[in-house]
Amino acid sequence: MKVKVGIVGCGVVGTGTVRLLLENSNIIQKKTGVELVLTKVADKDWERKREIEIPTYLRTHDYREVIKESDIVVELVGGKDFAKNLILEALEENKHVITANKRLLAEDGLEVFRKARERGLHIGFEASVGGGIPIVKALKEGLVGNRVRAIYGILNGTTNYILTKMLEERMDFSHALELAQKQGYAEADPSLDIDGWDSAHKICILSMIAFGRYVPFEEVYVEGIRDLDLLDLELGKELGYTLKLLAISKRRDGSMEVRVHPTFIRSEDALAKVSDVYNAIMVEGDFVGKTMFYGKGAGGQPTASAVVSDIVDIAKKLLFCTKDKDQLEWEDQSLYLSKDFYSRYYMRFDVPDRPGVLASVSRVLADYNISIASVLQKEKVCKMAGREGEPIVPLVILTHKAYESSMQKAIREIKNLPVIMGEPVVIRVEEEAY
Amino acid sequence: MKVKVGIVGCGVVGTGTVRLLLENSNIIQKKTGVELVLTKVADKDWERKREIEIPTYLRTHDYREVIKESDIVVELVGGKDFAKNLILEALEENKHVITANKRLLAEDGLEVFRKARERGLHIGFEASVGGGIPIVKALKEGLVGNRVRAIYGILNGTTNYILTKMLEERMDFSHALELAQKQGYAEADPSLDIDGWDSAHKICILSMIAFGRYVPFEEVYVEGIRDLDLLDLELGKELGYTLKLLAISKRRDGSMEVRVHPTFIRSEDALAKVSDVYNAIMVEGDFVGKTMFYGKGAGGQPTASAVVSDIVDIAKKLLFCTKDKDQLEWEDQSLYLSKDFYSRYYMRFDVPDRPGVLASVSRVLADYNISIASVLQKEKVCKMAGREGEPIVPLVILTHKAYESSMQKAIREIKNLPVIMGEPVVIRVEEEAY
Repeated sequence: MKVKVGIVGCGVVGTGTVRLLLENSNIIQKKTGVELVLTKVADKDWERKREIEIPTYLRTHDYREVIKESDIVVELVGGKDFAKNLILEALEENKHVITANKRLLAEDGLEVFRKARERGLHIGFEASVGGGIPIVKALKEGLVGNRVRAIYGILNGTTNYILTKMLEERMDFSHALELAQKQGYAEADPSLDIDGWDSAHKICILSMIAFGRYVPFEEVYVEGIRDLDLLDLELGKELGYTLKLLAISKRRDGSMEVRVHPTFIRSEDALAKVSDVYNAIMVEGDFVGKTMFYGKGAGGQPTASAVVSDIVDIAKKLLFCTKDKDQLEWEDQSLYLSKDFYSRYYMRFDVPDRPGVLASVSRVLADYNISIASVLQKEKVCKMAGREGEPIVPLVILTHKAYESSMQKAIREIKNLPVIMGEPVVIRVEEEAY
Repeated sequence: MKVKVGIVGCGVVGTGTVRLLLENSNIIQKKTGVELVLTKVADKDWERKREIEIPTYLRTHDYREVIKESDIVVELVGGKDFAKNLILEALEENKHVITANKRLLAEDGLEVFRKARERGLHIGFEASVGGGIPIVKALKEGLVGNRVRAIYGILNGTTNYILTKMLEERMDFSHALELAQKQGYAEADPSLDIDGWDSAHKICILSMIAFGRYVPFEEVYVEGIRDLDLLDLELGKELGYTLKLLAISKRRDGSMEVRVHPTFIRSEDALAKVSDVYNAIMVEGDFVGKTMFYGKGAGGQPTASAVVSDIVDIAKKLLFCTKDKDQLEWEDQSLYLSKDFYSRYYMRFDVPDRPGVLASVSRVLADYNISIASVLQKEKVCKMAGREGEPIVPLVILTHKAYESSMQKAIREIKNLPVIMGEPVVIRVEEEAY
């Protein structure tokens, strides 16, 4: 019962996958009866140092050789255009495909999935979200009986590491980023991570599975952590909230919200405890309730674990199954994507320590029907932040749920009040994390 | 593409499953192409109050009718003998079976699984562990590429609720138990939960999947929470540890440890944050590293979610697949089950507040090669516990890793020291939780 597997791209994840197949194929066969044969591994550079030495008989520079010799082609080159052409070419050759390429799937997934469906081929992408966490399988199979109400979580390890360090070691953003780069957790160009794009790619993919609806990447609201001020992390902490970069996808009435932004969650929530480079994904289903999946969201070995679970699933289907329907777009595609979020808000205004300030700010909020949950005003916090000149204090307001549109209008009006110095800070607050 | 499903036993989980199938069959068909038809539901009592009214056309008192009319029979009667005969009878009739019966699987699973394998039938049991958490699927499929090193967690909601209340509200065990019974979380006869049997049944099942080895239930070490003293929960807390009833299954060298007992874990560990009736299961694999699964471990709706994921999996196989090998006992069955655990220990001795006491106790530990990690001695703690007469103080010792056998010998010897009053308390400490 042999199935031939080839890999294109032998970086960290590719090397991890080769290693897993070399070390654990026997146990996989014992568990499932499937014998996986690694045919070829393609990479442009066989000189660079790797975690393990790739046996020479596996090496090639020609990805076409991998496609030719395999039943299942694993794409691990990353990037976009080359990867996309490679996948389409493999599908043309009637090969099944596994990819960890979240960007490709989020931006051009529709084309790839449709092509595969036309030809009755499988696309495995467990490795594209949450590293070794079997979240794709959980959504597609384990929770198949549920209508998912919401899926949200920490999908990017780099930013979670940075936020963890900022708060724990009282570092500002730039120092925490440097540290992440030293640790090898952040790229030289960290934009994909810290500006939220990576999380956005992943939430697009999860939304598609959870809600059966293709979410155009460009319609996702994305806000990164680059401009965060340690002061706000600390003020939020005082109010009982921890700041995380959350990716959120929710269904509300007839519409959907898909967004990525810094978010305060209650410090006692499990998501708030997820620190360093770990990922955690919360799924709320109508029957299962709240369930969470936690693990290493990146790295060669965890991601290899996900790649191999896809390999085994597809191999089983090849060996034991006739065509098995796995719809991705099973839901009403016209479902309206709302931009007018409904959420709680943390607002910080820097104001002079004078009477009447709170009154004028809260009046504007009242005008827009935004009610205040709590207020925090501390003088010493500012010294801490080292401001100078006229004593300016941060006025922090935590609101109840309000519409994003009203909040935006209120903020614009408040900004123009004479008592407001500098830019107001606005951070969304989620109560729903467990 | 119809598959006929029948249910025997219409209690909380049975009712939840009927409701899920009635409400969500359309979405399941959209997702998977599988049309599930609920044929009959058998129960002995159709008078009692249920979450939803079961349509009369589904009701029967005769489980044989269910077997006759279905492709897949869902056993939700619980108990042992009747359930076992029912399952064997269904298999005889060449029907696939789904069960949530952890006790049956842990105690007589081998017979049931072998019978099913002989006849090429499927047994689904996702619902037997962790309620709606798709842990069985994660182990069998999502983490299939891994050699599991350890699996451990909080598998019983009732005891977790009791321990949560004891610590949060400073209740002693009996009051917390009463509260759990009032809340409907604990049975009138709570022994199956509080004495650890339910957790033991579940860890047997998880061990079988994770390690491919049938673990005889009677060989599992089981210790419940009935005798726990609030004092120790509080002293542990001071040392930075939270007490949980953990079910643990580990592979160490050539042997395996399978055990259930009260366990101190570091208070900052995610498992320590899992409170009330929630369950959480940690899996350590050689490639995936540490990954955790969290959710509601019981209840009609979450468990129904698990039952239905099994129904859909089996239905897909019936519709799309030829026989697919799913080995349970794929590992060396001679793997030695060790009773000589290797763990850290928390020990409490009640001693008079005199010089030389610590010296004599620690000498015995040294004789048995058990080294001390930390010591805590507090006078006021005793007043707190309301002891009387000669001032007796609790001497708490936290050890480094030691063998259970040495610890037992040391404790026996320490007990006989003249300075030791009453029974020493010994609680194992796990450092490995994340």
